[in-house]
Parts: sequence; structure tokens; C-alpha cells
Amino acid sequence: MKALRFDGLTLTLDDVARPHSESEALVRVVKSGICNTDLEIVRGYAGFTGTLGHEFVGVVERSPEAPELVGRRVVGEINAGCGDCVLCKAGDARHCPQRTVLGIVGRDGAHAEYLLLPGRNLIEVPDNVTDAEAVFAEPLAAAFGITEQVEILPETSVAVIGDGKLGLLCAMSLRLKSHNVSIIGKHQTKIGISVNAGVEGILLNELPAAFSRHFDVVVEASGSESGFETAIDLVRPRGKIILKSTFHGRPTWASARVVVDEITIVGSRCGRFGPAVNLLAKRAINVENLIDDEVPLARGVAAIERSGRKGAMKILLRP
Amino acid sequence: MKALRFDGLTLTLDDVARPHSESEALVRVVKSGICNTDLEIVRGYAGFTGTLGHEFVGVVERSPEAPELVGRRVVGEINAGCGDCVLCKAGDARHCPQRTVLGIVGRDGAHAEYLLLPGRNLIEVPDNVTDAEAVFAEPLAAAFGITEQVEILPETSVAVIGDGKLGLLCAMSLRLKSHNVSIIGKHQTKIGISVNAGVEGILLNELPAAFSRHFDVVVEASGSESGFETAIDLVRPRGKIILKSTFHGRPTWASARVVVDEITIVGSRCGRFGPAVNLLAKRAINVENLIDDEVPLARGVAAIERSGRKGAMKILLRP
Repeated sequence: MKALRFDGLTLTLDDVARPHSESEALVRVVKSGICNTDLEIVRGYAGFTGTLGHEFVGVVERSPEAPELVGRRVVGEINAGCGDCVLCKAGDARHCPQRTVLGIVGRDGAHAEYLLLPGRNLIEVPDNVTDAEAVFAEPLAAAFGITEQVEILPETSVAVIGDGKLGLLCAMSLRLKSHNVSIIGKHQTKIGISVNAGVEGILLNELPAAFSRHFDVVVEASGSESGFETAIDLVRPRGKIILKSTFHGRPTWASARVVVDEITIVGSRCGRFGPAVNLLAKRAINVENLIDDEVPLARGVAAIERSGRKGAMKILLRP
Repeated sequence: MKALRFDGLTLTLDDVARPHSESEALVRVVKSGICNTDLEIVRGYAGFTGTLGHEFVGVVERSPEAPELVGRRVVGEINAGCGDCVLCKAGDARHCPQRTVLGIVGRDGAHAEYLLLPGRNLIEVPDNVTDAEAVFAEPLAAAFGITEQVEILPETSVAVIGDGKLGLLCAMSLRLKSHNVSIIGKHQTKIGISVNAGVEGILLNELPAAFSRHFDVVVEASGSESGFETAIDLVRPRGKIILKSTFHGRPTWASARVVVDEITIVGSRCGRFGPAVNLLAKRAINVENLIDDEVPLARGVAAIERSGRKGAMKILLRP
């Protein structure tokens, strides 16, 4: 089968054997989505080698442990735990120390014709959710997962920094909890996508001085060091910064302000898929506007390169 | 009166007018304590000029707004708020945006014969607390205040990084909540002070590899950039780092680990004085071993210099 693989130096479209497992489910990938994390991996983040990709929708072809899933259209939680530790037994493998992560840590990913995941990781997609929408279950889970880490009340003032795909998903999903959400970015057109969902859009270079130390919660989703600086500036004393973006590097920071103003910084990675799929099924979030293009997997190398360009939005791959 | 003053460049013992206020209380300082923040200010942190010092015990000589305090022995909350904002009206001036802070922000401090503070900031010291002990009310409030920011249960595993005065106070006061507290430092003798209070002492260069990603809560109280690195290493996934030390500089950090392991970082500055004075009155914390020396205020410049030397503990000044 075809798979988009990274060997630590180069990204190539390879022909590899179709994966097989006695226990895990075999999923035929219908569509996969390119995420900024894919780009970071190609820049050296996480030290991953293998097939990239962790956003997908597919159809189950084989599922020894959950045979009822065969033939079903599914998305999948990307963290595959050991199944034995305290965390896994509590039903949440996201922090299992032995976990593999689809296309990120020790497990071939979704930019391929087929992938393997434990049956327990798969979630059926309701009929009214399109394939393209379903690909967003993973990033939407990551965005909406913030609401399980930090209390967002209707009056909580929230700023999201970054108008990329993740920033827009954060702004739109937090808008479901608070009526006071702003997004701060560099691109009027991208900001506009969430303005349609009731978010206030602010261009970074027009940020009012009055917003300094103003927001109860600031979500850093820009993927840049300067975004974290902006977050420190915008959050109010005793406020919270949610760190969403992972990148290869070691930013510097004004740690003294965090101490003096007793700011809390919350690292935030993966959310639960169930609530995200529900949001898509309820049509609570419109993700169609986040899609730039859909191209064949065979053109995956060029698509990854194109995803790294300024202003690019979601590009879907079709095996 | 004599006062230990910093003009932005030089620290000197000056003769200045006794302070006067129509509304604030006049306190005759009995003893003051030298804190690492005093040293940081002399290195340029916070941009403060004026009389240094924010740890003290004294006797009220004049108190227009709280005349019942005259003649009483007191300690004082160091944040003096505007009295009018929402935070001040809720009884907590620690984050009032207009606040001055004794010897740190816009208000002459305690290394002097007299100081001014609003009457509402003063707390009477019970008779069974000595003058020297009472000077620790401020740093003990800062240490014990952690327990109001983060839940510490009896089984919570806690590591405190730094065996200076603040680190030892953090370790000893958190030990009152958890029976699983370790202190990590460079000095066997200093670590020993908290070992007597039931804390496990670990030399930094003997830190077991098994402690990596182990602790539920890690308190960074070393005042050094490398201390924050160690904290990131020791905290478990989904654990919490409490940042206590302020210093002049911009550390770099591995922000990706904070995101991937969903670590929470909590900035922590001042605590409430009431609980700290209660701990001293109940003899729950022994602070006597944290005192290196007591010298006359007239020798304050040399005492500040000496406090900055490796291994120095608390030096008290006596006007």
C-alpha cells in the first residue's frame, strides 16, 4: 500500500506492506488531514520516524476484539495505551507511559491506505457527519478538551492567539461555552471564519492596549514563541494561559510575571473524541470553511510542503 | 531615622525623616528580615528605589484608622491596595492593580526604624510567638499559601526544589498537609533542617533517576533557571509545578513537554498572614533554625551583601 513516510531526514511516498495485527483493528483510510504537528515532525519535533498522520476517517475492515465495528465508518483516539496500567484501566490512555501515538510516537499513522488501532480506540461516525467533517474529530477534541481542564463560564473572557486551524477550532468551540471570546491573528480572512461563529476578531497589529492584562483565559495556539509572549501580556492577574501548540524549540519567558501575578499555565494536548463527534453531529461547529483542498495521497509530499506555507488551512489526503 | 535604601545603583544606610501619614499606621520596627527578593531588587529586579525590606515585626505607635492597635506588636500584609476596587472590597489587596508593596513597589520598606502601612494590613502577634519568629510570618504565608492554590492531600507526592529559606519553609509547611514531601538541594546541612520536620532530604547530585516524572506537585523555590529545568523533569504527567521564586532574567524552557504531558504551572507569590501566624502560634513550624544571625540595622549594607553569599540563611536586622 501507499504511505507517506518520514525517515528522520526525508519525507517520501513509499510502497509498504499492508499492516496486520492479531488483535488490533485494521482500518481502510477514507480521508486523512494534515496537521501542524506533521510539519513539526518533519522539522525534527518528537523524533518520530514512520508513516505520518493522526487525523482520519476510515472504514473498519477487520476487528478481532470488536467485531461489531467491521464495515463501520470510524474515527479513532490516537493514543494507544498498554491496557494494563492504572490510567488505561480507568479508560483514558492519553497519558499511559507506555502509549504509542498514531503517526507521532512509535506507531505508523493515517497518511496511508490502511492503519491499525486498538478496537477500543475507534468511535463510529454518525451518518449526518461527512467524511471531511469527521477528519476534524481529532483537532476538535483537542480544542474542546480545554473545557475539561479549565472552567469556562458564559461570562469568562477568553482570547485565542493564532488564527490557524487549531486556533479557529479553539475559538469556535470555546464560544459554545462563553459569549466573550476573541481571536487574535494576522489574517483577516482566517479570523473571519470564526467571526461568523460569534467570535470577536482582532488583528494582532491592531491589538488595543486596553487588552493588556485583561483576559481571564488566554489560549496560545499560534505555534510561535511570540504567541506565548502575547499570551503573558494579555492574561489578567490570577488568570490562566492554555498552551496548545507544540513546537521544536525552547522559548524564553518572563517567568517573574507568572509568579508576581500568580498566573496559571495549563499544558493541553488531546481531548476526548466523544464530545467532539457529538459537536459535529449536532452541527454546533462548522468546519467546512477550514478546508483548503483535498488531494490524492499520491501527492502527499507536495501537500505537506504546501501546508507549511503562510496562510494555509486544512489539506485533506485521499488514499 | 536610619533606613537601608537603594537608589537604583547603590545600597546605603541613610538618615531620612520619620514617615508620617494622616491615615496609615506608624509602626516602630523591632526586627526585620532580609529576603532574597531584597537581593534581587539590588540586582535590578522590579525597578524599585527606596527603603528595602518587607519582613518585619514591630509595635504600632500611631493608627488613626485602627486606634485599638496602638501599642500592639504586629506583623503586616505587604500589599497595600487602593481600598476601592473589586479585589480590595473583597478583602484581598494582593492583586489590586493600584497596590503598593512594602519595600518592593512604590512604598518604603521595613529595613528602617519606622514604617507606614494601612491599619487593615496589620495583624497582632500572639504573645507566645517571639519577635524573631514573627518576622517569618511573611515568608511562611507565601509558603503555606501554596495550599490555597493547589490541593495537597495526605498522599500527594511533593518535591520542593531549593534548600534556601523559602524552600525549607515550603517543605516544612507542605509537610503539614502531606506525609510524602521531599526537598532537593545542594547543602546537606540546610536540607537537614527540614528533615527534622519529617521531610525527605535529597542532594541534587544524588537525585535518583526514578524520580523523573514522579511527583504530583513540584515547588520551584531555588531561584535559579536550572531549578525550573529540574521541576519540569520531576513532575509527573498532568502534575503541577508551583513557581515561587522571582528573579531578574528570562529563562528558556521545554514548553513542548508542558503541552504533551499536560503539566500545569502555577505562579505563586504572597499568601495570607492569618494562617501563617496561626502556624507560628501553634508551634507547627520551627523557624529558629533558619536564622543565621541578627545584626544592627547600622550594619545593614554588609548584612545584605552577606545574605547573598552561598549557603547564607536568614539574617535579621535590629534598628
